[in-house]
Amino acid sequence: MFTLTSPPLSLTVSCSLWPSVSFSGLSAAKLLKEKGLSPVVLEARDRVGGRTFTVQNEQTKYVDLGGAYVGPTQNRILRLAKECGVKTYKVNEEERLVHYVKGKSYPFKGSFPPMWNPFALMDYNNLWRKMDEMGSEIPREAPWKAPHAEEWDKMTMKQLFDKICWTSSARRFATLFVNVNVTSEPHEVSALWFLWYVKQCGGTMRIFSTTNGGQERKFLGGSSQISECMAKELGERVKMESPVYKIDQTGDMVEVETLNKETYKAKYVIVATPPGLNLKMHFNPELPPLRNQLIHRVPMGSVIKCIVYYRENFWRKKGYCGTMVIEEEEAPIGLTLDDTKPDGTVPAIMGWLLPPCRKKRICEIYSRVLGSEEALHPVHYEEKNWCEEEYSGGCYTAYFPPGILTQYGKVLREPVGRLYFAGTETATEWSGYMEGAVQAGERAAREVRPFIIIIIHEVPALPFVTTFWERNLPSVGGFINFLGVASVLSVATAAGMLAYQKGLLTRS
Amino acid sequence: MFTLTSPPLSLTVSCSLWPSVSFSGLSAAKLLKEKGLSPVVLEARDRVGGRTFTVQNEQTKYVDLGGAYVGPTQNRILRLAKECGVKTYKVNEEERLVHYVKGKSYPFKGSFPPMWNPFALMDYNNLWRKMDEMGSEIPREAPWKAPHAEEWDKMTMKQLFDKICWTSSARRFATLFVNVNVTSEPHEVSALWFLWYVKQCGGTMRIFSTTNGGQERKFLGGSSQISECMAKELGERVKMESPVYKIDQTGDMVEVETLNKETYKAKYVIVATPPGLNLKMHFNPELPPLRNQLIHRVPMGSVIKCIVYYRENFWRKKGYCGTMVIEEEEAPIGLTLDDTKPDGTVPAIMGWLLPPCRKKRICEIYSRVLGSEEALHPVHYEEKNWCEEEYSGGCYTAYFPPGILTQYGKVLREPVGRLYFAGTETATEWSGYMEGAVQAGERAAREVRPFIIIIIHEVPALPFVTTFWERNLPSVGGFINFLGVASVLSVATAAGMLAYQKGLLTRS
Repeated sequence: MFTLTSPPLSLTVSCSLWPSVSFSGLSAAKLLKEKGLSPVVLEARDRVGGRTFTVQNEQTKYVDLGGAYVGPTQNRILRLAKECGVKTYKVNEEERLVHYVKGKSYPFKGSFPPMWNPFALMDYNNLWRKMDEMGSEIPREAPWKAPHAEEWDKMTMKQLFDKICWTSSARRFATLFVNVNVTSEPHEVSALWFLWYVKQCGGTMRIFSTTNGGQERKFLGGSSQISECMAKELGERVKMESPVYKIDQTGDMVEVETLNKETYKAKYVIVATPPGLNLKMHFNPELPPLRNQLIHRVPMGSVIKCIVYYRENFWRKKGYCGTMVIEEEEAPIGLTLDDTKPDGTVPAIMGWLLPPCRKKRICEIYSRVLGSEEALHPVHYEEKNWCEEEYSGGCYTAYFPPGILTQYGKVLREPVGRLYFAGTETATEWSGYMEGAVQAGERAAREVRPFIIIIIHEVPALPFVTTFWERNLPSVGGFINFLGVASVLSVATAAGMLAYQKGLLTRS
Repeated sequence: MFTLTSPPLSLTVSCSLWPSVSFSGLSAAKLLKEKGLSPVVLEARDRVGGRTFTVQNEQTKYVDLGGAYVGPTQNRILRLAKECGVKTYKVNEEERLVHYVKGKSYPFKGSFPPMWNPFALMDYNNLWRKMDEMGSEIPREAPWKAPHAEEWDKMTMKQLFDKICWTSSARRFATLFVNVNVTSEPHEVSALWFLWYVKQCGGTMRIFSTTNGGQERKFLGGSSQISECMAKELGERVKMESPVYKIDQTGDMVEVETLNKETYKAKYVIVATPPGLNLKMHFNPELPPLRNQLIHRVPMGSVIKCIVYYRENFWRKKGYCGTMVIEEEEAPIGLTLDDTKPDGTVPAIMGWLLPPCRKKRICEIYSRVLGSEEALHPVHYEEKNWCEEEYSGGCYTAYFPPGILTQYGKVLREPVGRLYFAGTETATEWSGYMEGAVQAGERAAREVRPFIIIIIHEVPALPFVTTFWERNLPSVGGFINFLGVASVLSVATAAGMLAYQKGLLTRS
């Protein structure tokens, strides 16, 4: 048995999970140590970094198999990186992006593929505008308090898309947008939760963009360097391979037991795992009913990150930057980014696979999209299936199925006795990202011991300016209504009659 | 450390959960012992019975605060009861049931309230018929193989009701039907999963009925007697207060560690918890990716069982049997049953509350529904909030949110090395009930060591006969279509035009 005493002691239980936990737990502990407390970090795995995972080998130099991207407005993680002397570089977006749809590649510039069909244009424009408008109604800190919270939480994103999209092309792209941002399907997630998620990242443009968005930069040398730097600073206070299985709050001090048969005692405990992994611990006393139910209801997304290495950067020669937006029913992959090192060495393309994975098909699709035989002959391949990790449960982050956020959301970061909750899932800005992990960790640290943190803007964040047409273009429905007034009045009337009849019945 | 050797050894990990686990784990162990093996049962709590829980006290004599009801076709649990000498009695349904809607009480006889409005009648009839028809397409053992599995799994039951119900009264009753049967909301559950659930209980009539259905009988003396009888038979083999936190399959024998610091070794382990409570254990090696993801995706329903005791059985005097079907927006309770003892003593009414609970309002609503002042003056009250139980996570059973059954369902009872899975959630007949718990336990036991079990019909199961009108009455939609052909052809045509226009756009 291992007991820690000495003045204000806190303990961070870190189940080491992709951007969140390790970052969240470590950044909480770092801050508490700086403020004169004596934190201990219990890390479930044999490495820190959690849902970030940088691997080094000859073929790749180094590669981020987990959380990797950062961008403007993510000032906390950028501050930590600066403190650790880790530099960022911009993801290559010099050349044109490719939108692959119905078996054809369309090169383009900008965040979203342009539309030529006027109906599709109106529909896309309305889709993004509508999601951002709905998002603007949702409070970051308390999405369950949004004026339409109940209504939107009872709906899946699929239902919302079926309602607002008139064209199948907008619906298809909307599905990809959900897949890529939260590694789950539109029919799995609550509309309220997804709209909140996009909003707290800064909106549809910020979350999806490379330049000026969430994927603008990567860390030179890999993201794990930051957690390793924090762990180094904490030294002996970080206990590796120490999965927590028991937390007992019945005594004077909170008692925590780990699989490697150690017992720790602390005044406070910060649990910095995704909510669902609270289940790995047996609590005495039991958790309150709402939290006990919440932690069974917020699964992690499913994703495999894969990087294909080539002899040459053949796509740049063809005028493509390496970003592919792939819309195909059976495609194993929806979005890729160039993963070549900033000095032009180690040419590679990174993609997010939605399981079940069909590895062999990745190069085939790259070959089709980039129109190049060379894509079929990679020199190296790396992948990481986050679904198999017991101490992640999946990646990138937890999602909320319909009905959960309004019923259980409010206890997400509500302390339970001397337990406080961190992890990127509890953040209110860039939740699901490394940035959110740091925000949550530092917030939990401040709950234990209040102090002020000043946010400095680390990289420029440009506002996204909408054009007159983006703001005022009608939706397809609006356009048809307008036409309806002018020329198809009879249809509108008949439709109204039908609605009236149905309404009558509804009142029976 | 506690090691068990001796020939074919098996171990049942039982997190003691309402009808399922204790019943499932104990019935597996009982059978294995009878076949000459040496099982050990590790029970998380200080009592057996799991999600069944019989309490004895002066005011109630005895009361089932957990799983209690059994009925025809539940032959396994009835066989076990017989072996233990536990008798059943019929739940009182002599007098009339009450349907309370829009502030008025309507007494009736039969399983479902009758409808007088012809539209509502068509709509109700179509609702039950449709659910049973859809259910008939779904294989009990593999719902993910149903012809429309993907389509129905992407839909919530709310979406399905919005689609098939024309009247708000049918929609309201349909909501109550989901609430009562699976203690969750229509917008939370996958349509495929719910339709499967109803089907594997024998259809809408069998699951919802008292007489000839799932609520026909209770056990004289309480349901916990059966698990206690099994535990007695197993004697020293049942280890109480032994929550399992670690299962290691890397050695010759499976090694299991419990919170009370014991280590057990076995050739096989049957994990008889709801899927979500597998998370309480740390596995070495890790579980396969699909199972690892499944167990984060199947939360338990939320329910509080409450029983109000009265001096007199005043409702029977008024000609009511005690069954109330309560439809009211803010009512804390949807369905009640008489809970008086079969000899007429200890008059009581049992109800299922959907949390958040509003205890004080229960008697008020009983008073309104039964039209009696006496309901406001109970002599005693019992309740059990299953949401607060760490080793249940909720009750009655796990539900599947949209998208989960088709993606992860197939690993529900797939063994992992020497681990086998029981628990009522893994059953294919009366899953969610005590009967399913026994089926699952005995199936898992047979996976460890194959042998045959003969099913004997313990109580008569009468088929539900549908009338000519139930089979042939049109739905509201069908009726309108029929009318449409005759008289409102213009509306139909216009609607068709509108659909055509929308169809055109959809193809863009």
